[in-house]
Amino acid sequence: MIENDFYTAQTQGPYETASIGRLDLEDGGVIDDCWLAYATAGHLNEDKTNAILIPTWYSGTHGTWFQQYIGPGHALDPAEYFIICVNQIGNGMSVSPRNTADDSIAMSSFPKVRIGDDVVAQQRLLHQKFGIEELFAVVGGSMGAQQTYEWIVRFPDRVHRAAAIAGTAQNTPHDFLFTQTLNEAIESDPGYAGGEYTSHTDVSEGLRRQSHLWAVMGFSTEWWKKEAWRGLGLDAPDAVLADFLDPLFMSMDPNTLLNNAWKWQRGDVSRHTGGDLAAALGRVTATTFVMPVSEDLFFPVRDCAAEQELIPGSELRVIDDDAGHLGLFNISPDYMSQIDANLTDLFSR
Amino acid sequence: MIENDFYTAQTQGPYETASIGRLDLEDGGVIDDCWLAYATAGHLNEDKTNAILIPTWYSGTHGTWFQQYIGPGHALDPAEYFIICVNQIGNGMSVSPRNTADDSIAMSSFPKVRIGDDVVAQQRLLHQKFGIEELFAVVGGSMGAQQTYEWIVRFPDRVHRAAAIAGTAQNTPHDFLFTQTLNEAIESDPGYAGGEYTSHTDVSEGLRRQSHLWAVMGFSTEWWKKEAWRGLGLDAPDAVLADFLDPLFMSMDPNTLLNNAWKWQRGDVSRHTGGDLAAALGRVTATTFVMPVSEDLFFPVRDCAAEQELIPGSELRVIDDDAGHLGLFNISPDYMSQIDANLTDLFSR
Repeated sequence: MIENDFYTAQTQGPYETASIGRLDLEDGGVIDDCWLAYATAGHLNEDKTNAILIPTWYSGTHGTWFQQYIGPGHALDPAEYFIICVNQIGNGMSVSPRNTADDSIAMSSFPKVRIGDDVVAQQRLLHQKFGIEELFAVVGGSMGAQQTYEWIVRFPDRVHRAAAIAGTAQNTPHDFLFTQTLNEAIESDPGYAGGEYTSHTDVSEGLRRQSHLWAVMGFSTEWWKKEAWRGLGLDAPDAVLADFLDPLFMSMDPNTLLNNAWKWQRGDVSRHTGGDLAAALGRVTATTFVMPVSEDLFFPVRDCAAEQELIPGSELRVIDDDAGHLGLFNISPDYMSQIDANLTDLFSR
Repeated sequence: MIENDFYTAQTQGPYETASIGRLDLEDGGVIDDCWLAYATAGHLNEDKTNAILIPTWYSGTHGTWFQQYIGPGHALDPAEYFIICVNQIGNGMSVSPRNTADDSIAMSSFPKVRIGDDVVAQQRLLHQKFGIEELFAVVGGSMGAQQTYEWIVRFPDRVHRAAAIAGTAQNTPHDFLFTQTLNEAIESDPGYAGGEYTSHTDVSEGLRRQSHLWAVMGFSTEWWKKEAWRGLGLDAPDAVLADFLDPLFMSMDPNTLLNNAWKWQRGDVSRHTGGDLAAALGRVTATTFVMPVSEDLFFPVRDCAAEQELIPGSELRVIDDDAGHLGLFNISPDYMSQIDANLTDLFSR
């Protein structure tokens, strides 16, 4: 067990945990006691027809969703919906290399987990814990979008609406390589010790280098050029790294990031259809909004748009934001109003 | 002196060297014996009105220019022009951390060099060695474009035509950060030893990590998605790294890359005009073609177009190439025909 303040209720906000029992993983591994950390808002109605599932993104937890996206005045309004945000497996909050009590899967021994494993685990949690069989909607960003796509392809009858923000159904080769550089930043740090470090601070320099890669790929050339970081109360480009990204990524757990990166790299709904992406996305019956961010450098609009065209009845809703992919953090003045408008529209269908 | 086969006539093609004497650098350093490695093609006419200067890019030498861009059938035709390609200071061919005989500036002691220092050195070489006072044209790509812009702002009366391919007159904040990640890939390798390694192979892992960053930023999402690497005779995405980029970057000298990166990060013609970019580019009298590559991720078309609008009488000529920035290597079927057509047009003005 690696202690880390980042993965606590104090930092991320309150959450609960529940075990779904043994989870046999797509790649052959097993998690004997697969427990998930989740947070809810609102109340499940009697018919159980108002549940919205939110899966989490790389490096993220339920925290940002509750701090930024969920609440009165938002489309994700707890007065109307029962909102459940489930931390993805291996993300440091749910069962993960750093926090499992099972030594056989701790640290570098943690098994490879795929997007499909998360979706299966989430479905079991919803069924076992809440008796939820169908979802009003699934809403996810980045790796959360990967899980959203997996839901509507794997369980087309269980999801009525889907919003996939800044992510793809089938990861791209370019994205795979970008993720590889994130991994190499960590693995090249001698303190990483093959995954057997004793504190995440042993890997501070590797995490800092990963942070700097996010500075390049996470924002856009325009965001930097227009000095949009001033909107964050920062007074120099260096401060974006030193005061924002570095402290954030240097707080995180290296094995967590690596395990989730492996999953991210291999997200692909066409695994259900022998590699035929059109056939996989053709299964979708949920009303689906594909919501790329205009300046995203690694989930570019055209990659998302090409998938949207394969999803029956779907709509492309581009979120205009110079921040690019990290716009997901809700750091631009016009971001959340676009998200809320689109989700409100989706939820009215 | 660090031996390295990459920086030899066998690898890069024949070249000559000439000293321009002492060079006092903009940032306060001095190179007592500043010698430049250059290669020429064609013959200087009697009036000395047919000289075309080509400065080099980051990680590059005169080699690629002679192998890909210069020759019969190309716009850069030695039958018509006297073409001189000058290796930038610190690039491993001209005086550099690895090859200087002056121990006081060897390896980690090599001084900081700016784009303006190169242009001053090139002007002296042209004058002293060839008696050339005016250039028919300057043509450069990437850092070569930075030097091209520096030429037409610093010496407006000495240049009649300019082609700036895939580069900017003022480096962007995003570009600065990208370059920083290239540096960190090297500096984080324990074998780098603060610049005092005994062979570039001591830094193989750092150079490999830099190669992987080029795989992400050097090509475009479309290039990877369309599997355009098949056009290079490669049969898998991994081969782009293992058989092309890795061996290339792992052949290079770490201090060379770091020294040139420092220069790249600070390229800015507005140093001549107290930070006023419009005033600096307003000085230009050369007929100038601004030639960004359509899919360039770090010198994007819009950054180049914004500068082009500030250059009197200039034209924006976008090179359509999915390869992105590394299209400069002439790896796409339609790349060179576009370069040649535009340069032929420019040279006819």
